[in-house]
Amino acid sequence: MISLSDLQRRIEQGELSPDTAVARSLEAIETRDKEIGAFVCHAKSAHAAESGPLRGIAVGIKDIIDTADFPTEMGSPIYRGWRPRADAPVVMMLKRAGATIIGKTTTTAFAAMDPTPTLNPHNHDHTPGGSSAGSAASVAAGMIPLAFGTQTGGSVIRPAAFCGVAAIKPSYRLLPTVGVKCYSWALDTVGLFAAGSEDLACGLAAMTGRADLLAIEAPRPPSFGVVTQDFAGKAERSGEDGLQAALRAAERAGASVRTISLPEILADAWGIHPIIQEFEAHHALAWEYGTHHDEIAPLLRARLDGTAGLTAAEYDEARGIAHRARGALGEIFDSIDVLLTYSAPGAAPKGLSSTGDPRFNRLWTLVGNPCVNVPTHRTEGNLPVGVQVIARFGNDVGALAAARFLEQALAKSK
Amino acid sequence: MISLSDLQRRIEQGELSPDTAVARSLEAIETRDKEIGAFVCHAKSAHAAESGPLRGIAVGIKDIIDTADFPTEMGSPIYRGWRPRADAPVVMMLKRAGATIIGKTTTTAFAAMDPTPTLNPHNHDHTPGGSSAGSAASVAAGMIPLAFGTQTGGSVIRPAAFCGVAAIKPSYRLLPTVGVKCYSWALDTVGLFAAGSEDLACGLAAMTGRADLLAIEAPRPPSFGVVTQDFAGKAERSGEDGLQAALRAAERAGASVRTISLPEILADAWGIHPIIQEFEAHHALAWEYGTHHDEIAPLLRARLDGTAGLTAAEYDEARGIAHRARGALGEIFDSIDVLLTYSAPGAAPKGLSSTGDPRFNRLWTLVGNPCVNVPTHRTEGNLPVGVQVIARFGNDVGALAAARFLEQALAKSK
Repeated sequence: MISLSDLQRRIEQGELSPDTAVARSLEAIETRDKEIGAFVCHAKSAHAAESGPLRGIAVGIKDIIDTADFPTEMGSPIYRGWRPRADAPVVMMLKRAGATIIGKTTTTAFAAMDPTPTLNPHNHDHTPGGSSAGSAASVAAGMIPLAFGTQTGGSVIRPAAFCGVAAIKPSYRLLPTVGVKCYSWALDTVGLFAAGSEDLACGLAAMTGRADLLAIEAPRPPSFGVVTQDFAGKAERSGEDGLQAALRAAERAGASVRTISLPEILADAWGIHPIIQEFEAHHALAWEYGTHHDEIAPLLRARLDGTAGLTAAEYDEARGIAHRARGALGEIFDSIDVLLTYSAPGAAPKGLSSTGDPRFNRLWTLVGNPCVNVPTHRTEGNLPVGVQVIARFGNDVGALAAARFLEQALAKSK
Repeated sequence: MISLSDLQRRIEQGELSPDTAVARSLEAIETRDKEIGAFVCHAKSAHAAESGPLRGIAVGIKDIIDTADFPTEMGSPIYRGWRPRADAPVVMMLKRAGATIIGKTTTTAFAAMDPTPTLNPHNHDHTPGGSSAGSAASVAAGMIPLAFGTQTGGSVIRPAAFCGVAAIKPSYRLLPTVGVKCYSWALDTVGLFAAGSEDLACGLAAMTGRADLLAIEAPRPPSFGVVTQDFAGKAERSGEDGLQAALRAAERAGASVRTISLPEILADAWGIHPIIQEFEAHHALAWEYGTHHDEIAPLLRARLDGTAGLTAAEYDEARGIAHRARGALGEIFDSIDVLLTYSAPGAAPKGLSSTGDPRFNRLWTLVGNPCVNVPTHRTEGNLPVGVQVIARFGNDVGALAAARFLEQALAKSK
């Protein structure tokens, strides 16, 4: 993989020109993407900006995020060839930091569940996950150092785990979702994919101008609270192996690790996530559903058809539960630094007919806390497995610092 | 003015056909809009839906709200002729309820402060207010029974007061802002303009499917807490007259009325509203600012130029203050039903070079509580004045019920 922070250092020191760095990404895309299919479209030639902390960094943008220079097709024939007028604010944040937008990465239709043609770079018989399939796969395959995805259920952390890359779903609204095709306004969150947590921190700090996000060297080992999310069902063997590997490595590196039992309201919140998601989707996609019903991808169409009866009263009740859950979760972070749990039930499932299950992700999207995926190990089939580190709402640097501690602990224990 | 609820009753009873109702609005636009200039564009012919609670209701849509059937020009040459792909969710909510989208109403550029060409129907030498100028004026001039606007500072309640119409800025996110050009995602709120509060309730209930919004006959007179918002400066004579007329009428009709002094944190919140608004605007309008700077309307451009230095730290601090202010305000509603305050400093100022001052509105947009404008009287220059009724967050029906009580009390006292 291409390390963003490593590229930054080499460019800063004059070892590498920004144009060369971008050109190498373009070459890698030309060479490898025929096989992986991570891009919907990409630049034919590209120049780097001369200044800015992200000069020389080629970035892939999930194809539900508006770009003025590339079509934005939402993974759906309904938007074939669609050209937005403006770049989304998150795209402008990248450009202002000097990054080069290199192309648009595949997305499931409207960031829902119908798979993309993208393959998992580690094993082509397995899904790369979704909905941010192309963003996870393009970073994993070493084509680009940074990509944007979005998460409404588990669409950033799950594909990152399946593809063995680092990813952050920041605190809700740290990054604006303006100009990002909406599925659920209470849940949709823009996230970043990169080689490691330091790379994520460099990318996020550069685009937001929040230099404090760079302070990811923890002064002391963080305290971890392990949660198994029993309300979401059992993890698979590979997922459990990943969690055990992470907590053993953390303990060996001097961190305190204890099992946390989440209050009942968080199980309730997990249960009502789909109500908020689908009630809002019926509004957000009302035009597509009302005027292009038969062109909506089949899994999404069936889900929308099946939830058309959701009422405002059910939605209001669900929002009340989500509000109380956020309060209860806040108290847990009074006694620990971060939570540690599965990024997905296990390694990427076989086949391309499913993008996998977001059941271990959706609670954390609902509460809005920052989550970072940390790869733990590979299965016998060479498939990556990951765990997610979750910090208090607004403590994105804490999530990144604990993820970095865990990455280093895992590297040492190998 | 055309009463939406009256039209509904006549259509329901077969006295009026939906097509005739829509045709009359179209005729009124053809006749009166040459003078007022409330529409950017409108349908040349239109048919009503055959069913739905809003069949026969012609609606005007502020021109920052996406429509698939009309251009959406944001009040700016940067978007001249721009055709969105999809209708915004709020437009689809109207269509599903049977309403007819009759045209797009004028907006200041990107819903900021540069005036539109629209005149105040009550006195052409005065501004109709802004930014939702066309929506307020088209309802006030009796062209249409319902129009959509948006409020980020005071862009719904202020023009409603200046034009003498009822308007509601609902609880934040009761109506989705997806497909509405963003200025500030934490503040932007879609609102409705109509002849009276019953009309607002009928429109809002029909489009949301929330029948409980129709229960606006208060079982007992509401208790009013009067706030003068001294932190925002003094009202003008006409504004003060309006507030006094409203509270006297309410008392005479049997309501309890007492003066409330707001805790200091609410003055702080009033003070930081512009920080949140402009920090987010720099993201939301980053593409326009970065690529079409000189085409941005002059007052907005100057405001953006002047706030380019706002930092993430200032923004974070402002969000913290807003959060605490919402908590403190919630406690006030434990002892009263609604607050009563000025909708604007006074009647519409003379001239068309300013849309007026949102200083009595911005706190209420920041906290997200529902606000309803109630016209109180006319000045000697025939200019309407209004007060706003503010209810607890989520209690939109309470705001509408108290507004209705006040409308009736004011009618009796005349």
